Amino acid sequence: MSGSALAVALVHHPIVDKRGDQVVTAVTNLDLHDIARTARTYGVRRFYVITPAVEQLLLVERILQHWREGHGASYNPHRGEALALIETATTLEAAIAAWSRETGAEAMPILTGAKRSDGVSFEQCRQLRQQHPLLLVFGTGWGLAPEIFTRGWTVLEPIRGAGDYNHLPVRSAAAIILDRLHAEP
Amino acid sequence: MSGSALAVALVHHPIVDKRGDQVVTAVTNLDLHDIARTARTYGVRRFYVITPAVEQLLLVERILQHWREGHGASYNPHRGEALALIETATTLEAAIAAWSRETGAEAMPILTGAKRSDGVSFEQCRQLRQQHPLLLVFGTGWGLAPEIFTRGWTVLEPIRGAGDYNHLPVRSAAAIILDRLHAEP
Repeated sequence: MSGSALAVALVHHPIVDKRGDQVVTAVTNLDLHDIARTARTYGVRRFYVITPAVEQLLLVERILQHWREGHGASYNPHRGEALALIETATTLEAAIAAWSRETGAEAMPILTGAKRSDGVSFEQCRQLRQQHPLLLVFGTGWGLAPEIFTRGWTVLEPIRGAGDYNHLPVRSAAAIILDRLHAEP
Repeated sequence: MSGSALAVALVHHPIVDKRGDQVVTAVTNLDLHDIARTARTYGVRRFYVITPAVEQLLLVERILQHWREGHGASYNPHRGEALALIETATTLEAAIAAWSRETGAEAMPILTGAKRSDGVSFEQCRQLRQQHPLLLVFGTGWGLAPEIFTRGWTVLEPIRGAGDYNHLPVRSAAAIILDRLHAEP
């Protein structure tokens, strides 16, 4: 993959639910596995799992320990290799700061969402990648809360399929976006 | 999406496990949801869930009923809309026959797998789509059993990421492949 170092973030707060209310979503084992495996495949260097809920952070640590050191590590070492990308953070800002520290440059968050119409194109995003370490930000539940979009951060255009249906699982959206950013311009 | 009608199949037998032994894998709720939502997004017309195990077929029917008619249908109608693409079949051959009947033309199966080096390119696959209704065939577990590759069916080149790691979840691989086939040549 060409360009600067790439990281992904999976946000569990602030998120909106089906009715548009702001919530903290639960971390799911499957999101961690699927996104970590895809990230590892595409050379992503870090996968930030973001939640302010202490018991959820402990759950993440338990899952990671199972696959990195526990029975899972010997049963399927490829999982541990992917899950090794995971770090936890309590806020998106903390993840941006951590990724900036790790890369030694100011990391640029790139927000994703199915309903945005104001985003940069995938082509533009590939170009931004030549200049900054990017942090691709994915929401859970019914998507990133509106307040996140008021902070002046860059937004990526939505994935458009063959019609009006745009209810991709975040796991699938992350896979498609990483594949598109991997493609040569 | 340009070209003839497209369908996908998720095979639970014959599949190889970690050691290369032939097995019947379990149907998972998540595979059905994720692949159905991605398929629906990309205009795929049918999603065949293939297993010879009667109790597994019943499980699929139970899941479908919940989201098509039960509590799930009112809770989240988008799910039912995606899961409506699902049909079950006991063998891959039966799915090919059903898809040929539905489209009124001879359906062409396209086998996918992470370890193949003999496949047609995505560009060639997009061209095949101009001529035939395609059935994209995905394996579960550690992949489609070798015997499936001895039947003279077309194989698609694997997804290549940024390195040697090629352990994408089938849910992510299906998303990436449908997105690539959707792109204009």
